[in-house]
Amino acid sequence: MTDTFLERVKNTIEKYQMLAVKDVVLVGVSGGPDSVALLNILFLLKEKYQLNLFVVHVNHMFRGMQAQREAEFVAELAESRGLGYRIFERDVPKLIREEGLSPQEAGHRVRKQIFQQLGQEIGAQKLALGHHAEDRAETVLLHIIQGTGLEGLAGMLPVSGWTIRPLAQTYKDEIINYCKENGLTFYLDPSNKKPVYLRNKIRLELLPYLKKELNPQIVESLVKLENIAAEDNRFLDELTEKLLPGFLISSQKGKLILSTVKLNGEHLALQRRILRKVYNVMRPEEQGLSFNHVERLLELCQAAKGAKQLNLPRAIVVKKNYDYLEFLDEEVHSPEKTEGFTILWEIPGRVELHKHITFNAFYTSTKPIVFKDFYQVTLDGDKIRSPLIIRQRKPGDRIKPLGMEGTKKLKDIFIDQKIAKEVRDEVPIVCCGEEIIWLPGITMHNDYKVSSNTKCYLNLELVKDEYV
Amino acid sequence: MTDTFLERVKNTIEKYQMLAVKDVVLVGVSGGPDSVALLNILFLLKEKYQLNLFVVHVNHMFRGMQAQREAEFVAELAESRGLGYRIFERDVPKLIREEGLSPQEAGHRVRKQIFQQLGQEIGAQKLALGHHAEDRAETVLLHIIQGTGLEGLAGMLPVSGWTIRPLAQTYKDEIINYCKENGLTFYLDPSNKKPVYLRNKIRLELLPYLKKELNPQIVESLVKLENIAAEDNRFLDELTEKLLPGFLISSQKGKLILSTVKLNGEHLALQRRILRKVYNVMRPEEQGLSFNHVERLLELCQAAKGAKQLNLPRAIVVKKNYDYLEFLDEEVHSPEKTEGFTILWEIPGRVELHKHITFNAFYTSTKPIVFKDFYQVTLDGDKIRSPLIIRQRKPGDRIKPLGMEGTKKLKDIFIDQKIAKEVRDEVPIVCCGEEIIWLPGITMHNDYKVSSNTKCYLNLELVKDEYV
Repeated sequence: MTDTFLERVKNTIEKYQMLAVKDVVLVGVSGGPDSVALLNILFLLKEKYQLNLFVVHVNHMFRGMQAQREAEFVAELAESRGLGYRIFERDVPKLIREEGLSPQEAGHRVRKQIFQQLGQEIGAQKLALGHHAEDRAETVLLHIIQGTGLEGLAGMLPVSGWTIRPLAQTYKDEIINYCKENGLTFYLDPSNKKPVYLRNKIRLELLPYLKKELNPQIVESLVKLENIAAEDNRFLDELTEKLLPGFLISSQKGKLILSTVKLNGEHLALQRRILRKVYNVMRPEEQGLSFNHVERLLELCQAAKGAKQLNLPRAIVVKKNYDYLEFLDEEVHSPEKTEGFTILWEIPGRVELHKHITFNAFYTSTKPIVFKDFYQVTLDGDKIRSPLIIRQRKPGDRIKPLGMEGTKKLKDIFIDQKIAKEVRDEVPIVCCGEEIIWLPGITMHNDYKVSSNTKCYLNLELVKDEYV
Repeated sequence: MTDTFLERVKNTIEKYQMLAVKDVVLVGVSGGPDSVALLNILFLLKEKYQLNLFVVHVNHMFRGMQAQREAEFVAELAESRGLGYRIFERDVPKLIREEGLSPQEAGHRVRKQIFQQLGQEIGAQKLALGHHAEDRAETVLLHIIQGTGLEGLAGMLPVSGWTIRPLAQTYKDEIINYCKENGLTFYLDPSNKKPVYLRNKIRLELLPYLKKELNPQIVESLVKLENIAAEDNRFLDELTEKLLPGFLISSQKGKLILSTVKLNGEHLALQRRILRKVYNVMRPEEQGLSFNHVERLLELCQAAKGAKQLNLPRAIVVKKNYDYLEFLDEEVHSPEKTEGFTILWEIPGRVELHKHITFNAFYTSTKPIVFKDFYQVTLDGDKIRSPLIIRQRKPGDRIKPLGMEGTKKLKDIFIDQKIAKEVRDEVPIVCCGEEIIWLPGITMHNDYKVSSNTKCYLNLELVKDEYV
């Protein structure tokens, strides 16, 4: 077993040309079996490739003393082999509280930043991580469940950018066997055993269920899908990049103008990608546009009727004028008064109305505290379908206010609440389809309130700049 | 509710241009709520579009008297509206037994054939089916679980070919509500409630679990993924079709020759699609090549070393010669003696060794009958990874025969079994990786036998022509 395992790892390294002679390789070592096996194998190959190995460990400060011991263990592992190493401590729980991130997202962000900085500092060409086939399958499932296009299906490839995953074609049980047979000790992270995080649920519940009940080869199926989708996506992405300039009428800092005539003549697959690419040119650090945003942009391109303006996340405004679409970065060009704003709000998730107001939505399974000011509301999650729409009021708007049985004109509510005429156009109105479900700071729709039957609580909040 | 539901169906019909004036529309009606609602809505639109509606019902003969009553119910439904109709009976259980298909596959195949024939007969432009958003989400999951590339992600689009799905953007509970509010009676198929078929398991267990535990919007996420993947796939497919002639050196009946030099210079995503397209040109009625077949073809294209020949399903042989790859249809060009055959066998599934011998693999969760002739064996499914390899013997081959502790030379086994020298090269040898796991008609590997720990039984069988 050990021999074929080792051979397989070596084959993976060769097949994907993961290592070049004299590479400086940063090795991420958590202290778990995967990264311990990885370090051991790279150490075996050190001479052959004349590698310069450097170990990095990040203590996420979730688990006090035990995390401390793991850090010491990794330090000893590196020292005993005469390798350089660095241990980082980051207060991830604090980051979670402050940024509203999930534990996994926060950990990922922290590690990514550390790896990049340290990699530059020591001049590393490669970053080696211990992910295996089951990790890849989990990632594919995670993205499918959270909603994804092609990119999300290709989450954890054997090689992506400077990251290499030599264990990408091996399995957890083989790795643990390898550790045991070679007398390698390791720590098992107890937080991996709790099915509270989405990823852990997938690992501990969903994947085993799929394997047992639906397809014993599920991991292989998912890894294949990742492989195929990754190549298809890369091809389409490169093609889009090449074609993009042909669709642009003008391109300047913070302002791109796209020909809708040219775009509408293209294949829908390319239309979608061109629109996403334009956004990514302006906001390269963002994850990219959601499906619903792209669909709304397509509507804007095609139709004469309907909204002539769309606000995209992170202060990008898109305006339709005749035969072109103008993408404007509001951080570069200070915006005029935005007329008739409409923003899509994917839930769960965040969206910016403008620089000073952000909306945030998240699900919980236990009933949260009730705030009476209506800047934060809890709704029955099963009644809501994503995306919500945040828009300006329009004539004839009505809502059934909390505690009432009939509907009421928005205009009358504004008058009752003594909201000045001049600011009524600036009050963001939150809709689910055609229905107004929330007037932030004022009231919410009675039919969406939490009842004794509610199983899934959806929390919506409006966060103003001064509170952050 | 009813109004918005009906509006949504009408919008779907308009958005996807499902109906044209004076269309002859064949409507598949099972008698369940989906197809009953569908027929009702199309009937409402009959005048507006001047439609000619024709009802078709297929009795799969699974459920005796009840199926009979359902057929009569559908006939009355059509008659009461003055619509033409036709009821078909097909012995699907017999087809399952004879062709080794799953119940769902067999049903699908039967319906497809009937719809096509009847459609031609009555000159129908459209086939309307009652699939809804949850059906689409199920289909995406089904394909992901069974293993798929991009095509499989786009299984049940609102429009595909002549098939239209006006309910594609609505949900089961809305459909049932619509039926109730409009006094429409329907039958519920009790076989939909049994989680024994893969699709039912997905509907009754997996989707509810995903919705409850991981993402309340899972149906929407999957439908989005289907949408995106469908467009990306269509674009790539059309591109491949356009580019294919440029890769072909020669093209005649049953023989296509591909330039490996040109192919190797292309993007991997296109390489894979060109290879699959060539196969589909020769076998248009087949589902297409599996991932593993394509990977082996790529190896054949790139490497000078290794196998120079590959047998693809349904008697297509591929030979590598210098800088080209020859695809040969053995049904057109009678084959010379195939030297050194190697066939990939995706499990579960079927593969043809040649015209007269087929292999079949399927999983069961209960222990099946044991056959002593070794033309059918049951193995421990958890120990096997797809694909298996069926190949010719080679020097040094060994196996640990059933009931023995040590390994034995294949040559000695052949001598013991008195298998003539001349035919030893024709005995197919079944391997999992490097290991021989089954010698059909002779023995199997001792380590793969079923034990008291076996949870998943893998059945392998060799089917000879004369037995069919």
